[in-house]
Amino acid sequence: MGDAALPKEHLLIAFMHDLTPEQLEEIRAKFPELEVSSVTLKRGEDIPSELARKATYIVTFANLPKPEDAENVQFIHFLSAGLNHVIQHPIFRETAIPLTSSSGVHGPPIAEWTVMNWLVHSRRYATMYEKQKKHEWRDSSSGYFQGVYDQVGKRVGILGYGSIGRQIGRVSKALGMTVYAYTASPRPTPSSRHDNGFIVPGTGDKEGTVPVSWHHGTDKASVREFLALGLDHLVISLPLTPQTTHLLGAEEFALLAASQGSKGPKPYLTNISRGKVLDQDALIAALNSGELSGAALDVTDPEPLPAEHPLWDVPNVQISPHVSSLGVEYFSRSLDIAKENVGRIKRGEDLLNAYKRGKGY
Amino acid sequence: MGDAALPKEHLLIAFMHDLTPEQLEEIRAKFPELEVSSVTLKRGEDIPSELARKATYIVTFANLPKPEDAENVQFIHFLSAGLNHVIQHPIFRETAIPLTSSSGVHGPPIAEWTVMNWLVHSRRYATMYEKQKKHEWRDSSSGYFQGVYDQVGKRVGILGYGSIGRQIGRVSKALGMTVYAYTASPRPTPSSRHDNGFIVPGTGDKEGTVPVSWHHGTDKASVREFLALGLDHLVISLPLTPQTTHLLGAEEFALLAASQGSKGPKPYLTNISRGKVLDQDALIAALNSGELSGAALDVTDPEPLPAEHPLWDVPNVQISPHVSSLGVEYFSRSLDIAKENVGRIKRGEDLLNAYKRGKGY
Repeated sequence: MGDAALPKEHLLIAFMHDLTPEQLEEIRAKFPELEVSSVTLKRGEDIPSELARKATYIVTFANLPKPEDAENVQFIHFLSAGLNHVIQHPIFRETAIPLTSSSGVHGPPIAEWTVMNWLVHSRRYATMYEKQKKHEWRDSSSGYFQGVYDQVGKRVGILGYGSIGRQIGRVSKALGMTVYAYTASPRPTPSSRHDNGFIVPGTGDKEGTVPVSWHHGTDKASVREFLALGLDHLVISLPLTPQTTHLLGAEEFALLAASQGSKGPKPYLTNISRGKVLDQDALIAALNSGELSGAALDVTDPEPLPAEHPLWDVPNVQISPHVSSLGVEYFSRSLDIAKENVGRIKRGEDLLNAYKRGKGY
Repeated sequence: MGDAALPKEHLLIAFMHDLTPEQLEEIRAKFPELEVSSVTLKRGEDIPSELARKATYIVTFANLPKPEDAENVQFIHFLSAGLNHVIQHPIFRETAIPLTSSSGVHGPPIAEWTVMNWLVHSRRYATMYEKQKKHEWRDSSSGYFQGVYDQVGKRVGILGYGSIGRQIGRVSKALGMTVYAYTASPRPTPSSRHDNGFIVPGTGDKEGTVPVSWHHGTDKASVREFLALGLDHLVISLPLTPQTTHLLGAEEFALLAASQGSKGPKPYLTNISRGKVLDQDALIAALNSGELSGAALDVTDPEPLPAEHPLWDVPNVQISPHVSSLGVEYFSRSLDIAKENVGRIKRGEDLLNAYKRGKGY
């Protein structure tokens, strides 16, 4: 009856929550050539030896095998974009097992969250919403739409032009806006502007052709040059590091507003990074004074934001509780990276989203 | 000293509201070579003879000169996209004075209104908004983001692929969506797919390259073929005519839902046309049953929608009072068309957005 089947390679999902039968079915459909199993573990708990030793590939958020159990493991794929939360584990320090991140999966949801907030602000969605609740049509004297404006011709500066910033840039350009990119290191050549990580198909700016100009630097002087471009929107999409902590404060907001000039609404700030990249008291002052026309904040300092905090009620601020990246697509997209990398392993190619030990990202 | 200045040509703005000094200043800056004056008239009132006779160009919403006063008038530019409201005037019937419309100025605001509503729905903005009002952060058990999804990979069918539909298509593609176009007449060749009217710079789909396929027809059978494409979004951007009145009803909504299948949220309907293009009772039923996952309606039947009308409280419906086209840019953009046409007159070229008498649009 022909050859006996080769033993299947084994994909182990080690997660903090039980997978639903539907999720397992979807995963098995995505990896028909692999045996798939899952285990539910506490956050940070090591994967039990008998499971780890059977695994060819591991997908996890924060559960790792002991190095001695991982001899057959071809790669460990993380469900998070960053790996800082597990960087002290012996797998990082004592093995050369390839590690891959989910960087890139956040582009579409966070870009949609960003553009939603811009439009909600510029088109006065809250008025529309409250009037609908009261069953009120407009009357011609109500000034319902006074001051409504659109995004065409607006200049958006994106501090941190990674996979998230690129999808924001892509949609911004379609809206008729002009995009300015800011990165930590210089990107002088076309190839240096490429995005070589995972990109959700149909999105992003792989070639880096969306921005009209690129700017860079890691010091405040470079950031201030960027803020002086006359921006209508500033999007903060930077990692939080000692250098980026409180990078933006009263002087930077004043510079942003002064540079934008008097045409149209004052600059609008979007923070999808971390609350501590800006001086939140200075932001509150800039919003109260009208120096900034509004702000969309998915992150605050601290989180959760206490109920009595004044930020909740500052005029023209839209706050969400650190949810901009969430969505039903997250898990499936992250597994697409693992699927791509199973193929690359077979073909002997470099892995997508490979973590470079020692470089810290 | 030197030559006496030539008498300036005269641009007359005949409008129903007084222009502000700032508006007049902006207009004079846009037309530095013309003398500019304005007159405030009642809707539909003829322009007084002594003013009309001095005019070289007229910009108006609904105030026209008597034919005998218009011998020097080079064109009349309308601030509206359609001219149906003035089509019985003798200027239409008894003269050959070029008439131009503001078609094209609505693309960006209505596209932004549309995408805003999609994202408000898919990302549950109302939850975010209500929780902010109550100063509530999420707790991990709240299911705050359960069911949040993004637009990547979603299929949008645009019934009426004119200047508005094209800007919706452009932004949809940037969001990672697939666009299907529907027009009344066939567009089989690349040149037949061009948009030859006014386009707000940086927006639209001039070449018609955004859609993956084009569909057409003026009968219900053709529309039903379109609705059977498996769409996640249907956008209605058709003119209201006897043929399009109640074009969509219970059978069409059922077809749309059945064709879309079981993957992801049920189809979402956006109406930026007129309330009467659909059977509103059937829409209410389709939303109540969950056959449609939601609807964004800038137009209703009737308008204003009475306070006691059940549509206000149907689940997942977002209603605005026929304001999607409004914004601070409207007047200035419409004047950009007049400015372009002053240049075309000088150069002896065909006018942009010229109304073709006898064709009805």
